[in-house]
Amino acid sequence: MDALLKEITAIVGASNVLTGEDVSARRADWLTGAPCRAGAIVRPGSTSELAAVMRVCHAARQPVVTHGGLTGLMHGAEADPDELAVSLERMTAIEAVDPVSATLTVQAGAPLESVQQAAEAVGLQFALDLGARGSCTIGGNIATNAGGIRVIRYGMMRQQVLGLEAVLADGSVVSSMNRMLKNNAGFDLKQLFIGSEGTLGIVTRAVLRLHPPTPDVQTALVACPSFEDLTGLLGHLGRSLGGSLAAFEAMWQSHYRLLTQESGRHTPPLSPEAPFYVLFESLGSDPESHGTQFALALERALEDGLISDAVLAQSDSQRQGLWSIREDIEGLIQALSPLLAFDVSLPIPEMHRYVATLEEALAHDWPQGRMVTFGHLGDGNLHISITVGTADPAARRAVEHLVYTPLAKLGGSVSAEHGIGLEKRNYLGLSRTPEEITLMHTLKRALDPHGLLNRHKVLAPKQG
Amino acid sequence: MDALLKEITAIVGASNVLTGEDVSARRADWLTGAPCRAGAIVRPGSTSELAAVMRVCHAARQPVVTHGGLTGLMHGAEADPDELAVSLERMTAIEAVDPVSATLTVQAGAPLESVQQAAEAVGLQFALDLGARGSCTIGGNIATNAGGIRVIRYGMMRQQVLGLEAVLADGSVVSSMNRMLKNNAGFDLKQLFIGSEGTLGIVTRAVLRLHPPTPDVQTALVACPSFEDLTGLLGHLGRSLGGSLAAFEAMWQSHYRLLTQESGRHTPPLSPEAPFYVLFESLGSDPESHGTQFALALERALEDGLISDAVLAQSDSQRQGLWSIREDIEGLIQALSPLLAFDVSLPIPEMHRYVATLEEALAHDWPQGRMVTFGHLGDGNLHISITVGTADPAARRAVEHLVYTPLAKLGGSVSAEHGIGLEKRNYLGLSRTPEEITLMHTLKRALDPHGLLNRHKVLAPKQG
Repeated sequence: MDALLKEITAIVGASNVLTGEDVSARRADWLTGAPCRAGAIVRPGSTSELAAVMRVCHAARQPVVTHGGLTGLMHGAEADPDELAVSLERMTAIEAVDPVSATLTVQAGAPLESVQQAAEAVGLQFALDLGARGSCTIGGNIATNAGGIRVIRYGMMRQQVLGLEAVLADGSVVSSMNRMLKNNAGFDLKQLFIGSEGTLGIVTRAVLRLHPPTPDVQTALVACPSFEDLTGLLGHLGRSLGGSLAAFEAMWQSHYRLLTQESGRHTPPLSPEAPFYVLFESLGSDPESHGTQFALALERALEDGLISDAVLAQSDSQRQGLWSIREDIEGLIQALSPLLAFDVSLPIPEMHRYVATLEEALAHDWPQGRMVTFGHLGDGNLHISITVGTADPAARRAVEHLVYTPLAKLGGSVSAEHGIGLEKRNYLGLSRTPEEITLMHTLKRALDPHGLLNRHKVLAPKQG
Repeated sequence: MDALLKEITAIVGASNVLTGEDVSARRADWLTGAPCRAGAIVRPGSTSELAAVMRVCHAARQPVVTHGGLTGLMHGAEADPDELAVSLERMTAIEAVDPVSATLTVQAGAPLESVQQAAEAVGLQFALDLGARGSCTIGGNIATNAGGIRVIRYGMMRQQVLGLEAVLADGSVVSSMNRMLKNNAGFDLKQLFIGSEGTLGIVTRAVLRLHPPTPDVQTALVACPSFEDLTGLLGHLGRSLGGSLAAFEAMWQSHYRLLTQESGRHTPPLSPEAPFYVLFESLGSDPESHGTQFALALERALEDGLISDAVLAQSDSQRQGLWSIREDIEGLIQALSPLLAFDVSLPIPEMHRYVATLEEALAHDWPQGRMVTFGHLGDGNLHISITVGTADPAARRAVEHLVYTPLAKLGGSVSAEHGIGLEKRNYLGLSRTPEEITLMHTLKRALDPHGLLNRHKVLAPKQG
């Protein structure tokens, strides 16, 4: 690698090629906190520098891993000592904001939060939001097609990207910096790079779509008497709120009870006897008309028996209080240690039976085990938290098997929003057909014939 | 082709292989009305029949053109005598509707209208709508990434597709029938087939996203004193209507005046002296709160001077009357014969200068020529109608040159929503970089190495 690093140093400058302790002082991963093991970390300052770096890496058949904010959960940014990490940390500029077209042009290393702020500065909003907003980067959000809690209303990261620029494995620059909502001039190449976790190209810049602001936020926590009422409520809110419903976060009783009554971490805003709870939120413009509409929708849901109890947030601090229950990951980690966390999706009507069956199977195999469930129900996305009292890899694999296997029959997904990385690579076949996986390999081979980009992530090495 | 047709007949049955007059009796194209020139038309009844047909075509290196509703405008379904047309007309089933998950599973040959009706039957709506709804098919909508008038709110066809199934050139079936809003398990393969105009695969089935109904429709036609006010109005409505703005159809004075005062086809609802007119529409659920919000937004726009005059539709027939001006293509054809129609997109702030410069250039080169402009302004999409008094191909090319060339510098697109087909193939390089076009060829070669699917469409044959 030394000769190569000399060439790369000539491109980016010595201060932008990190080796030795400068590498190991960095974490590989938010989750494990383990030190970065890459052979070196290169920090290009521009697309053309990165392209030049990739040209020499391509010539030397040097594998490369891209680093954004390293907040992913699937070990998608892990690097081996024979790999080079490319960090986009110097490419953080917000290059342009067009408030009329409602677009923003940004370099891939910019933190999500800086984009949100730049949008707000011109009276607009960027729709994607995540807990990691301060450290995750736009490039990482694109590479993993980040989701979050507003997907019902605004879609995932894919829907926020109008255009992008990527450097391919051979160093060629594909610049698809479209700025329009409508552009059907040829194949929509940007789609290749969104959600493919850095395996097909390195995203360097993007044009993002902005949205009008929705200053009026209405939030409620309600109790539902049955799963049927839960889905009935989702339909009712969709119809009543005219498309402004932005979050519909369901909590199974187990989840709600654990984080309120049992842990003592939150005073239960509603008594914890209902089988389901939902935290839902609607985003509107005018407080008066939107507030009236929201209250009316809530009232009708009560009248129709879709909900048995409700609390409507009357202030921002009440709203934060309701969200703090749903977002209390710390509480889950404390109570369910060692925690096995799962992110799956499946058609909504199948969820109740899926969760119940999984609970039974888990209780059978692991009598000491415990499981609680919440999810972005409107998106088909469940987050399941399990402990079986051990972090032993074999136990973990056994639990994964219980969680993932039933999804195949239901047309579900082993990864709703976290991606595949290394972590779920071996389960990809449960959610995708052999023909799909073959086509993924075809694409990988076409764009990166030497397999240099984020090697072995998403797709397990193919036999033969 | 005869030996091949024998094999194909064994797969689909004699009644589903059309030749001779049964082929020429069909139109190749909605636009020209010319007879279909394909060597034969094959009508598979299922995905597996189509897969078997493609396997024999692949073995025989037989080029294939897919036929949906034949309502495209770019000659994307034209077939030569040495090509086989595959019509999806027997695959029209709506296979499943899941009102809880708000999804619908359909075969690709189903007309758009049948999907809209099936969605309505369960109290939901399908967001895409086009004039050709009765004859265009879902497969065609997907292959061309159809747009329409509600793109600001719901996005294009791409955003309506959760999953799809496609048959590749070699007859393999890629079934990506995802039904969830969130699914990050591996590459999002469906994106390859959306908007690639049948060149990478034949779409056979799809899972579509449905939306809650928006029964309250508020529509207004307004006059704008300047382009700055026009874009100011777009921003104002975005902010005031909390995301329910669904259409923002701008008409330049030339367009409005031609279709009202001059043609006498429509009584002008507003006097035709303003430089710009906008027909905008908002879709809500509750008539009372939505109606109040809409009226208030209109009132503020008047107060702020963003609009100089307005008419609010008070009934469905008034609404239809307003739309009939904007949608009067017949009026354009009569007044601007022979009509050269263009569908381009560009960043909104550039539009005014682009149109003015184009008008000047046209007046210079064609003193007898005439041009009027309207567009889905919020999407960056302009439809420009031009006549220069002749349909001579050289004249047409000269006008195309005037319309398309300036787009390159502005980051605009030679095709906002109609696609490329054969029609705009030679202008693709104005909107896409050489590296992008190289990558399109790479994809084409990877998925269809013998170039059998919709040959020579979108991408001109590559040299060397």
